[in-house]
Amino acid sequence: MPRRKREGMESRWAGSRTEAFSDGVFAIAVTLLVLDLHVPESAMNDLLHGIVHQWPNYLAYATSFITIGGIWLAHHAIFRRLRYVNTQVMRLNLLLLMTVSFLPFPTGLAAQAVRDENAERVAVIFYGASLLIVSVALAALWRSVVRDPKLLRPEVTEQEIRAITNRSTPNIGLYVGATVLALFAPNAAAGFYLVIALVTVARARGDTPAPEPEASLAA
Amino acid sequence: MPRRKREGMESRWAGSRTEAFSDGVFAIAVTLLVLDLHVPESAMNDLLHGIVHQWPNYLAYATSFITIGGIWLAHHAIFRRLRYVNTQVMRLNLLLLMTVSFLPFPTGLAAQAVRDENAERVAVIFYGASLLIVSVALAALWRSVVRDPKLLRPEVTEQEIRAITNRSTPNIGLYVGATVLALFAPNAAAGFYLVIALVTVARARGDTPAPEPEASLAA
Amino acid sequence: MPRRKREGMESRWAGSRTEAFSDGVFAIAVTLLVLDLHVPESAMNDLLHGIVHQWPNYLAYATSFITIGGIWLAHHAIFRRLRYVNTQVMRLNLLLLMTVSFLPFPTGLAAQAVRDENAERVAVIFYGASLLIVSVALAALWRSVVRDPKLLRPEVTEQEIRAITNRSTPNIGLYVGATVLALFAPNAAAGFYLVIALVTVARARGDTPAPEPEASLAA
Amino acid sequence: MPRRKREGMESRWAGSRTEAFSDGVFAIAVTLLVLDLHVPESAMNDLLHGIVHQWPNYLAYATSFITIGGIWLAHHAIFRRLRYVNTQVMRLNLLLLMTVSFLPFPTGLAAQAVRDENAERVAVIFYGASLLIVSVALAALWRSVVRDPKLLRPEVTEQEIRAITNRSTPNIGLYVGATVLALFAPNAAAGFYLVIALVTVARARGDTPAPEPEASLAA
Repeated sequence: MPRRKREGMESRWAGSRTEAFSDGVFAIAVTLLVLDLHVPESAMNDLLHGIVHQWPNYLAYATSFITIGGIWLAHHAIFRRLRYVNTQVMRLNLLLLMTVSFLPFPTGLAAQAVRDENAERVAVIFYGASLLIVSVALAALWRSVVRDPKLLRPEVTEQEIRAITNRSTPNIGLYVGATVLALFAPNAAAGFYLVIALVTVARARGDTPAPEPEASLAA
Repeated sequence: MPRRKREGMESRWAGSRTEAFSDGVFAIAVTLLVLDLHVPESAMNDLLHGIVHQWPNYLAYATSFITIGGIWLAHHAIFRRLRYVNTQVMRLNLLLLMTVSFLPFPTGLAAQAVRDENAERVAVIFYGASLLIVSVALAALWRSVVRDPKLLRPEVTEQEIRAITNRSTPNIGLYVGATVLALFAPNAAAGFYLVIALVTVARARGDTPAPEPEASLAA
Repeated sequence: MPRRKREGMESRWAGSRTEAFSDGVFAIAVTLLVLDLHVPESAMNDLLHGIVHQWPNYLAYATSFITIGGIWLAHHAIFRRLRYVNTQVMRLNLLLLMTVSFLPFPTGLAAQAVRDENAERVAVIFYGASLLIVSVALAALWRSVVRDPKLLRPEVTEQEIRAITNRSTPNIGLYVGATVLALFAPNAAAGFYLVIALVTVARARGDTPAPEPEASLAA
Repeated sequence: MPRRKREGMESRWAGSRTEAFSDGVFAIAVTLLVLDLHVPESAMNDLLHGIVHQWPNYLAYATSFITIGGIWLAHHAIFRRLRYVNTQVMRLNLLLLMTVSFLPFPTGLAAQAVRDENAERVAVIFYGASLLIVSVALAALWRSVVRDPKLLRPEVTEQEIRAITNRSTPNIGLYVGATVLALFAPNAAAGFYLVIALVTVARARGDTPAPEPEASLAA
């Protein structure tokens, strides 16, 4: 039984490091958002007003946090269905992570620009365009998986594949729409980004209990 | 033996990525706190005084570190009793992480405001309200687990469930109390937050050695 | 069967923590790069111009992200072929991580210096020298593995060893060349660094599906 | 075979999350050190001088990086010998992490203060005192493990226990010595901290190949 010999060493999943690295990037991108929240020293006279006055920053914080949370959920849904991570998935994953870790920049910019009508329009469009690029990178990653079915675990059904496609693809259209909307109504567009993020998280599905061990016991 | 076939691939726990992402967020939130510690260039003339003068920042650092440490311990106590992570747990976990990674902001604010009586009151109330929201998110996560017992591993006892509930629920009341106290005595409330954090960590329980392998050997 | 007794406890790979720590450092180094992106308050009048004006920062961001991504891929390619992590690998890995987590500094400097011809030359040489040191640390790590073949898993072939050597060694020469080029043409050198990073990622190979379980089933 | 039933779920080591959280904190603490490196805008005229002028920051960066690296190695050496993580180990680990993630503050202060003789003395003493506290926390963690031998895996020998004690305890004395030295000769003390860190890493031992599988095959 030569397989036994290396049992302890082979037991980790081939993609575990790609997941660990990605989880790190997602977690840091999401946590760095807090660095854009601060009340200027001058607001100490009336701190309550100073805190409330930061509302665009809270909105931007929540929107980007929930958006990245939704991308993490989609990333998790994809990777737990993979048997291994081939060269193309690795590259597209790196591209996705690059777009995700860029997000704190347009997030901070949008919050900073909110009190100037012209700047706000530009900042909200820039923010939307960044989210659009993240969605495209995510869709490209998923598409490259679907095109090469031997990447997927054998138990993944056609139905699951369609469900993931249906949950990730429409966001591209929504972000195009929201970004066009930002040209005319940046405030409405900013709210729309938050709604897209909330809906994405609401549509995500958790894990299911691994049925195999029980099944094999029954056998 | 079809189960065998995918043995190497199925061996990771279904919730391991949710844990990894959460650990990342907790670890970063806790480590970013240090960024609020710095001595102004002007204090270089009398650096010893400059360092000592930062005491409110050290207090805020320790309070938030120990508070987040306590939340991490509770999170760990919950997740190691789960069989899998369903949709609702995932969402509530994301909400919990959002409130935790927000904490460096009120922490920095509280330290910054400490030398101005009015600002301090507001900052300490804001800090307490943030901690309260974290506790509520944690309790909601645990409640959603308890309500759906098939989420829990079969070996988890009623007693363990009650113990976790008893360790997490009172904090909500304590934070309400401390935040009300902050209206009248912000300094006392600030000390109270530290005491709550210390008691939470003191009440947390470590892991126990997995008894199964030995037990099955004896059999 | 005494081995069985500790099965659950021995199942993790001996190098898993070294990987986890390294993944953390890589992920943070890559995500901290975003902190160098910001538009000054004064650019709010013409934010579109302000955003476009930051192009050297985007270039530096992308170059360093892709470079670190390529190093992570090489690190992963090395570590998944290891049986364990000996003392020397641990030390060289720590050295590699120290050079990698240093990179946000020369990256920010290069972006900052781009509008001053003299400063740019120095900054680009400094950036190239930093990348050169990272490559040397990576090559030293790989060399120390190759010199001690019992570090490698038994299934690793001579061909794989040569392939990794061929993918990592030339970068040292390329970074020497690019850094010398920076003396005369800093702009061209900056572009060259990006090309080296892209080629490194393009040459990296993903994981392959673990063949063992199937093989043993066939037997 | 009831043990089989939960095989997939029990396979992770009970302390894996404590390790993951700790790795995150170590990795972030080490990577945040780079944020203290920056060349002021005014140095762009003579950037080479500006970069060289930052030498105290590089020294502080290297010293703290290698110190934290050494603590990580010691932490890893302790945790891979544990069977599980009890309540006291969890608490002491949290204390250790709190002291480690504090280090970027005294590190930055020491680099900042180096050009003012009085400030330097205070900053170097403060830095040394911080390192001393980290060493004490680490020794306390190890001591609490040694006092409760059932925490240790059965295969850990008396010799290994003594070796870890011998590698970690002397640092307390060295840091006391270096901190006293800083009263009279801060520059020498700063160099001494680096030497202590280098010696700690040099004395650390890597992993050994898990002998069990081979042994059981031979049987």
